[in-house]
Amino acid sequence: MKLVDFALIDKTDTENIHTGILMAKSVLHQTEKMPIGEGLELAEVLDGLPYNADGLIPAIAQQHDSKEVLMMAWMNRAAIMETLQTGRVCYWSRSRQSYWRKGESSGQVQQLKTMRFDCDGDTILLLVDQTGPACHTGRRNCFYNVVKGHQVIVDAEPMIDPEQLYGKK
Amino acid sequence: MKLVDFALIDKTDTENIHTGILMAKSVLHQTEKMPIGEGLELAEVLDGLPYNADGLIPAIAQQHDSKEVLMMAWMNRAAIMETLQTGRVCYWSRSRQSYWRKGESSGQVQQLKTMRFDCDGDTILLLVDQTGPACHTGRRNCFYNVVKGHQVIVDAEPMIDPEQLYGKK
Repeated sequence: MKLVDFALIDKTDTENIHTGILMAKSVLHQTEKMPIGEGLELAEVLDGLPYNADGLIPAIAQQHDSKEVLMMAWMNRAAIMETLQTGRVCYWSRSRQSYWRKGESSGQVQQLKTMRFDCDGDTILLLVDQTGPACHTGRRNCFYNVVKGHQVIVDAEPMIDPEQLYGKK
Repeated sequence: MKLVDFALIDKTDTENIHTGILMAKSVLHQTEKMPIGEGLELAEVLDGLPYNADGLIPAIAQQHDSKEVLMMAWMNRAAIMETLQTGRVCYWSRSRQSYWRKGESSGQVQQLKTMRFDCDGDTILLLVDQTGPACHTGRRNCFYNVVKGHQVIVDAEPMIDPEQLYGKK
């Protein structure tokens, strides 16, 4: 499968097109019935992932040993390649519209242990070793807002003052 | 914060607007500096989440005890509410454009244990108790495609034949 060109994509190449979400067919549907140990070339997979209209795929970062889910962010093809080549996780920041090498301003890097793709190829799971807090608030993970009845309650506190983390103190 | 009306939204209410991704400010930024035990009303949070242009938010399902990441899917406000009210996870299927009550055709339901939101409110973490396989391929989780060097290899086999799971056998 060739690189999806979103300007040229035809409806026949997509499962569904509606506002804001372009769902291309994923090359990874080919592995559904493969036995353990079989697979595809990485380059072919990266060319055939169902990137959204911005060329992005969501990536979940999970601490490899404790299995804590740390955060979710977005990657494009180049961020995936850089992450695999350097072993340090690189996302694409949608708010800054630039590469986001995790830890470049905070020092709290993510070392990649294992990269996985799901059955549809539309989500990446990164098993990482996270230095210190993953969250910009200074908390270990980003999921500190928990639903309790009719409320959403904070249930974790920062490991580090975020102002210290980002050099404002 | 009022319900985000994407037809009326003003650029001043967003961090960033570009093709396919509308990033509204999240009400959950208010909890960043709150101590443990403080929070917001659930209805206020659900009205103020930064839903994408389709009104959706990605939701990660994690097995509550083993901490295995099972799958990632999407929810809208009504799917979140139904999940909280029934205790059975309900997603929004982008390909079918309808509610997707996990397990309604396969019998492999997800019971909700805990729902969490991240710091930006743009990702949900569902701690669930998954009956059998979470993946439509019959595998326990969807992340069976692992990167090994220049290849992407299958490393898990189905627990159940998917044709049996969906009543085709």
